[in-house]
Amino acid sequence: MQYQDRLDFAVDLARRAGAFAKTHFEAIDTLVIESKGHQDLVSNADKDTETLIRDALEEHWPDDGIVGEEHGRKTGTSGFDWVIDPIDGTANFVRGLPQWCVAIACAKDGEAVVGVIFEPSSGEMFTAARGGGAFVNGKPMRTAQTGEMGQGSVGIGFSGRLPGMKAVTALTQVVERGGVFFRNASGALMLAYVAAGRLIGYLEEFMNSWDCVAGMLMIEEAGGIIVKPDPETSLDHGTVVICGGPNIFAEIKEIAEASF
Amino acid sequence: MQYQDRLDFAVDLARRAGAFAKTHFEAIDTLVIESKGHQDLVSNADKDTETLIRDALEEHWPDDGIVGEEHGRKTGTSGFDWVIDPIDGTANFVRGLPQWCVAIACAKDGEAVVGVIFEPSSGEMFTAARGGGAFVNGKPMRTAQTGEMGQGSVGIGFSGRLPGMKAVTALTQVVERGGVFFRNASGALMLAYVAAGRLIGYLEEFMNSWDCVAGMLMIEEAGGIIVKPDPETSLDHGTVVICGGPNIFAEIKEIAEASF
Repeated sequence: MQYQDRLDFAVDLARRAGAFAKTHFEAIDTLVIESKGHQDLVSNADKDTETLIRDALEEHWPDDGIVGEEHGRKTGTSGFDWVIDPIDGTANFVRGLPQWCVAIACAKDGEAVVGVIFEPSSGEMFTAARGGGAFVNGKPMRTAQTGEMGQGSVGIGFSGRLPGMKAVTALTQVVERGGVFFRNASGALMLAYVAAGRLIGYLEEFMNSWDCVAGMLMIEEAGGIIVKPDPETSLDHGTVVICGGPNIFAEIKEIAEASF
Repeated sequence: MQYQDRLDFAVDLARRAGAFAKTHFEAIDTLVIESKGHQDLVSNADKDTETLIRDALEEHWPDDGIVGEEHGRKTGTSGFDWVIDPIDGTANFVRGLPQWCVAIACAKDGEAVVGVIFEPSSGEMFTAARGGGAFVNGKPMRTAQTGEMGQGSVGIGFSGRLPGMKAVTALTQVVERGGVFFRNASGALMLAYVAAGRLIGYLEEFMNSWDCVAGMLMIEEAGGIIVKPDPETSLDHGTVVICGGPNIFAEIKEIAEASF
């Protein structure tokens, strides 16, 4: 498979980064209960985990670029860019809620070719490579096949960065059409859940690339449909995210178009 | 402590029931990927796990009553009633999504005195006894202290049993007041998260007793405030659920009153 070397590297790195972040998480969990000082620890956990990931990438793939939440942009010369979110679901992480993950993707000329999402609390490792399928803990993933909104839940992204009423409008339409909404506060994990057929689709007005590139590739490789992000702009400037199983995607897109 | 014997029994039983249900979950997870036949398996998992719990209760506490989702009502003579949900978060369970839990509570004269919620995927064991505090994996829990909606997330219950627009109205108000919503599709787990200070509050128009009795006791014992369920009716007929940390409860109650 074409991107096997980078996929293997990303899987190993996500596992190491997740184990590292989890030691911080366990310390924060204690502090949350004491209700003090956890914000700094979280910020350190995010930064230190990104540093771990960056150092490994720079050593092994010195000609690749890097896009990350905490430490900005490194321009590469190989055409490959790594897109990393050391801790996705920071609001959960800070409060001791175990649904958070490490997301590592690699793009070639702006288009995702490798995506890895690792959730340390459950031990679930979601992986995909362009043309090579999508897997959770080594088992093939497949998006939901339903064409009915009532036959599953739709993940709704809501970041707090933007006024929330567009997300509420989309969610209201999901319910009006007989559907159910889901929001566990980790966008990357919800996208992995769409790939695994656990959610039938996902909608978010805007996501940064490090939150969504890995998951969107998984959805495509698991037989789902996404609104393709612009390869020219999305790595650096983010994108709308609209995706779902093949038989429900059109309705999810309708909802997004009426809401965002 | 007054209810130590029943608390210890419930903790042990929830752990055994969780391990049992997890073997079903792992089988279902495989079947979901193959997209066939999982509904029967889930139904069996629910029923078999409830049978395991009931058999243990009937053997050890023969004079206590039992209220459960799958097998109906056993009337007791001791004044104690066990309130059991073998798998809370069935929609997650059926789709291979690891956020589901076993909930076991005990009520004396209709009022909760013991509550246990066990999440097998993360290994988190949430416990409380009336007057004895609330704990997660043995560490004391404390509800969020914030008085500001923007400083945390509010869990929103949405069951699909009722038309969903009241839940949407409540959620819209949370967002209009600068807050963030959360819904991971396990009501019992979200209530445990309120007790642990991971969510600042929770709102649901109607919950069955087996979904909420354990979690509401935890919230009270962790310093939070709840709208007290009616001890005469709630075990058999359910209740509205409105709860939160001590400084945000009044605002959450306002939202509920304007929505439900």
